[in-house]
Amino acid sequence: MNRDIVRERKKGAFNPLDLTYVLDNGKIMTEKRRRIESMVYNDPQFKKKELSFMNQVERFNHSLDQELKAVRKMREQGWNPVDNRDEMAWFRSAVHGPEVNPLNLHTSMFLHTIMFQMTEEQQKKWLQAVLDFKIFGTYAQTELGHGTFLRGLETTATYDPSTQEFVLHSPTLTSMKWWPGNLGKVVTHAIVAARLITRAKDHGIHMFLCQLRHLEDHTPMPGVELGDIGPKFGFNNLDNGFLRLDHVRIPREQMCMRFSQVKPDGIYIAPPNTKLSYSSMVLARSNIVYSVGTALAKGATIATRYSAVRRQSELIPGRPEPLIIEYQSQQLKLFPQIATAIAFILCGQQVKQMYLTFISQAKEGNYSSLPELHSTTAGLKAFATQRACEGLEVLRMACGGHGYSSASAFPEIYGTFSPTCTFEGENTVMLLQTARFLVKAVRQASKGGKLTTLMSYLKMDQSERCNAKEPKDFMNIQTLLKAYRHRAKRMVTYATSSLEADLRGGLNNAIAWNKNHLHLLPASTAHCHLFVLDTFNQAVENAVCEDATKRILRTLVQFYALDGIVENKGEFLESGYLSIRHVDLVSKQLINLLAVIRPNAVSLVDAFDIHDDKLGSVLGRYDGNVYENLYKWAKSAPLNEKDVPDAYHLYIKPFLEENKTRVQARL
Amino acid sequence: MNRDIVRERKKGAFNPLDLTYVLDNGKIMTEKRRRIESMVYNDPQFKKKELSFMNQVERFNHSLDQELKAVRKMREQGWNPVDNRDEMAWFRSAVHGPEVNPLNLHTSMFLHTIMFQMTEEQQKKWLQAVLDFKIFGTYAQTELGHGTFLRGLETTATYDPSTQEFVLHSPTLTSMKWWPGNLGKVVTHAIVAARLITRAKDHGIHMFLCQLRHLEDHTPMPGVELGDIGPKFGFNNLDNGFLRLDHVRIPREQMCMRFSQVKPDGIYIAPPNTKLSYSSMVLARSNIVYSVGTALAKGATIATRYSAVRRQSELIPGRPEPLIIEYQSQQLKLFPQIATAIAFILCGQQVKQMYLTFISQAKEGNYSSLPELHSTTAGLKAFATQRACEGLEVLRMACGGHGYSSASAFPEIYGTFSPTCTFEGENTVMLLQTARFLVKAVRQASKGGKLTTLMSYLKMDQSERCNAKEPKDFMNIQTLLKAYRHRAKRMVTYATSSLEADLRGGLNNAIAWNKNHLHLLPASTAHCHLFVLDTFNQAVENAVCEDATKRILRTLVQFYALDGIVENKGEFLESGYLSIRHVDLVSKQLINLLAVIRPNAVSLVDAFDIHDDKLGSVLGRYDGNVYENLYKWAKSAPLNEKDVPDAYHLYIKPFLEENKTRVQARL
Repeated sequence: MNRDIVRERKKGAFNPLDLTYVLDNGKIMTEKRRRIESMVYNDPQFKKKELSFMNQVERFNHSLDQELKAVRKMREQGWNPVDNRDEMAWFRSAVHGPEVNPLNLHTSMFLHTIMFQMTEEQQKKWLQAVLDFKIFGTYAQTELGHGTFLRGLETTATYDPSTQEFVLHSPTLTSMKWWPGNLGKVVTHAIVAARLITRAKDHGIHMFLCQLRHLEDHTPMPGVELGDIGPKFGFNNLDNGFLRLDHVRIPREQMCMRFSQVKPDGIYIAPPNTKLSYSSMVLARSNIVYSVGTALAKGATIATRYSAVRRQSELIPGRPEPLIIEYQSQQLKLFPQIATAIAFILCGQQVKQMYLTFISQAKEGNYSSLPELHSTTAGLKAFATQRACEGLEVLRMACGGHGYSSASAFPEIYGTFSPTCTFEGENTVMLLQTARFLVKAVRQASKGGKLTTLMSYLKMDQSERCNAKEPKDFMNIQTLLKAYRHRAKRMVTYATSSLEADLRGGLNNAIAWNKNHLHLLPASTAHCHLFVLDTFNQAVENAVCEDATKRILRTLVQFYALDGIVENKGEFLESGYLSIRHVDLVSKQLINLLAVIRPNAVSLVDAFDIHDDKLGSVLGRYDGNVYENLYKWAKSAPLNEKDVPDAYHLYIKPFLEENKTRVQARL
Repeated sequence: MNRDIVRERKKGAFNPLDLTYVLDNGKIMTEKRRRIESMVYNDPQFKKKELSFMNQVERFNHSLDQELKAVRKMREQGWNPVDNRDEMAWFRSAVHGPEVNPLNLHTSMFLHTIMFQMTEEQQKKWLQAVLDFKIFGTYAQTELGHGTFLRGLETTATYDPSTQEFVLHSPTLTSMKWWPGNLGKVVTHAIVAARLITRAKDHGIHMFLCQLRHLEDHTPMPGVELGDIGPKFGFNNLDNGFLRLDHVRIPREQMCMRFSQVKPDGIYIAPPNTKLSYSSMVLARSNIVYSVGTALAKGATIATRYSAVRRQSELIPGRPEPLIIEYQSQQLKLFPQIATAIAFILCGQQVKQMYLTFISQAKEGNYSSLPELHSTTAGLKAFATQRACEGLEVLRMACGGHGYSSASAFPEIYGTFSPTCTFEGENTVMLLQTARFLVKAVRQASKGGKLTTLMSYLKMDQSERCNAKEPKDFMNIQTLLKAYRHRAKRMVTYATSSLEADLRGGLNNAIAWNKNHLHLLPASTAHCHLFVLDTFNQAVENAVCEDATKRILRTLVQFYALDGIVENKGEFLESGYLSIRHVDLVSKQLINLLAVIRPNAVSLVDAFDIHDDKLGSVLGRYDGNVYENLYKWAKSAPLNEKDVPDAYHLYIKPFLEENKTRVQARL
């Protein structure tokens, strides 16, 4: 164990394990998780290999092999994906380390659509086959030409009453399905999103179960063209694929008919709520905030531990080089990310809870919370993924040059994480969806209408001014929350007024919206920022934990709030609640809190409790023995298999020979 | 040719080629560059291969092969690296496309050190061998334990007068050289930065030429341990390496002795200026701003062209889907990056000029401009690389999901570009170096001392207020520059006062600096931002070009300035020159300019004149035929070599067989 990091661990003012319990949502959960993770870490078949030394095909094979071994092992436990969601997620996450579960879509979106959008009769036929992996499935929605804008999808499913079949077809190049995970090489079936056409009428997007490969030999079914879409920034253990359908026929019973139906004669029955078919997207998004928090936690763990063993430069002439965590600039890179990771984890727990509440209501036919859930998850998804993406790069660069090496794990983590900004709903579109909800709320408020708790800040008096006099006055979370509410109200109302002015000026609605993206997008962001701070604060106040843990958590809430003000001070100044003098006090208090967090930094990231095997980072090792392991890691790298590389014999030697005898170049 | 992009090209109000001349620094240069590029593009031995389909060893081999072919071809032209710097840079950049020149260090830092830090006598022995590639060299400075902080380097070169040799040695694990390009597998020699010890005294870092591999068979020399440091986020065509030296002896004559010497008896003669040995670093940094501009130009070209062919969603119900470039949010992603790329390219030309002036002065013994050059390039390097890194990710995400595919070229461009933030001087350290220069200037100013032109803004009256009344008043570049000067002055003087207060409070200098990073870093950034805007504006005013070109360039200067105010409005408000009302007018004017730039967007990126082969992007193709080429690209991807993958026979089939007969899972 590195002596510096041992010393750091002794400095912490709280017990990291107690914070782990909070982040896991209880001691029982932590113990369960650890027990399950140790099943993986103690099992030789799951011994970690260095992913960055493999090429794409090797990674694909390795990852699939690991997943199927994991499925077998989980079966031995008798787990199923409904009752053992957590157990299976923990197990898989331990197996796959920094990679994503390569069969994620089978067990999430594919299974979910079958369970949630198929009738009970349909489920009788398919559900068991999915649970038992008698077939492999994916969820094929995105096309080459259309992503987030679902209404633009072009694939058609035309009903033929003469045979009682749907004819699935890709009418254009851009209608090819493109991106779905496992579509290229693994799956035998897919849920295909397609425009339902019956009796010559287009009823928009519906879901169809389509077989893509023969179960006997895995060759594509007639009319089906499939393939991998090629290498990507990350996710290279996954065969994201394309699919071209040439008049592929499926039985009528393979349309997902729980909410809308096509009768044998082709008569269409519409669903009770058109938003219902999007519930799979809400599922995906509601999980994102939590997983964003855990991704950022990985980065924060690596950079913080490395900063507690790396020594560089000098602070006091003649003294030994200080740990880089002593530098204020380094603290300003690390601590906001630690605070944000914890904020997102706790906020994500909340959002997951909102989703589960909706699902249980939906089972009883109550879909009333879907619109608010939809718009909340949309904006939060964008807000959280954007912040975390930026944060991960700050953390990587906080490790200097070594962060750029695959040994740091940052290239893998960033590559795997960064598509969250554009998938499951592109972030700008997501923020605009939330903006629509916000503008509606402002209009309701201006008519004296009722506001939900979430939007009650629109009622506050905008002329109020902060009465803080010195830095420590900004330790009051109510003062901070008020500043955030003022800012959100100012921005949301400003954007709405600007929009209204353009509408009064005669612009059509869509054009007026488009003219105000500059105001609507940051308004949406400010609203989400407030939501996260508020939820983070409540989660901390409600947390059942030791006093010392509560104290450091409260400090992080304050720090998160203060840092957000410094980062966005223009918006806070515009709202008028804070003056330039106040912003100055906020900076001073932010600096004061750096000193409070400093001795706890390593303990805080230890509390994320991420096993070295899952982290996959030489820089982030728990034992802090970075340098000897960088050396060891490098020596096993692919180019070092031969001391004198093939390139010498192929290129360098002939070139040197040529040059021996050559007429000299002249300057 | 895609019809949408053809229509876009007709909309532009200026001739892209005329802007190309400006960006290339003259029509003659453009024509020369194009002629040289076409030599590459028409030569079958340089036909482009898809890099992302190769593994690390394949890329390394391929890239080296290409470079040696390029060297042979350039020899045929009779070029040399001093008189034909531009020609060779253009040729190599065309050969290597999105990759870096794999032998870059041989022809830059290695050659430069030999030419600039060796005596004429030493050069007689070595220079020709380097020019003729009779040896391969690199520049080995960074160590496992130390990067930017040069004084911390641990490698020693101990003089032994009995044999008149230096003994080069790595005394610790952390003293291993780590990161130098080509060190792992390619080079035979290196310039090694080591602490010179003679007569038992440590004289700090000096440069030594050391042979690392035998010229006969490429095996390492006795006492030399070498290897590749393993895969990285990018640069995977390069064998960045490690080097461990175990008492390796080199003749006294292999110390670079132009400025400091060790006499045969071991007497040390100090250099006239201790900063001189760092001039290789200044060379590297002075090139960065320009190359940052060209990297951002690549990203802007890809995202802008793609936005001019991609259609999505709706603006007017019932009408065809609009091009995504019609969305204001998309314009707000693209146009600031286009303006910034042009700003950096023009500013980079200026910085290169400053460097060349210094070099010619230095040849005559005048080193007076080195300190200002050093601090200017330090901060600018950090400012520009940071902006461009963020900008490239904005541009990638502006392409939605397809930006994440290697087909977009963004993963390659970002991976190759992003280490610029941490190499050749870590950005935070660089900004702090500039801050030191700024604080010194404030102190001089407060004593009534003379200020350089660069710092003359410190003399302005901080109580002045902007008198703009409507958005168009912010078209006046003098008003905009004044706002930037006020902001920079406020931040630089604020940081200095805060620092002085801490010093008066009794803190030692290093501790006081460390307590003020929160203020010093953004002050440095604000100063660099002003420098870029000012230089950009001057370059545009001085540009010899058609009126239409000048008009769009002026618009871009205004847009760059306005966008910078909106992005950093808190800092502008704090300076007091602009009020909240002014910031509002600035936003309005920014939106007004979007409409001016919009029809010119594709023409602007066309003016970067980046050949498709160099861009290497399916999304950024000149002809706009994105979708059919994405499909074609994907079909040739490695996983598609077999329709039914090996993974089926290895993993999927046995698993399906097992599941056929298995007792069913239960929910």
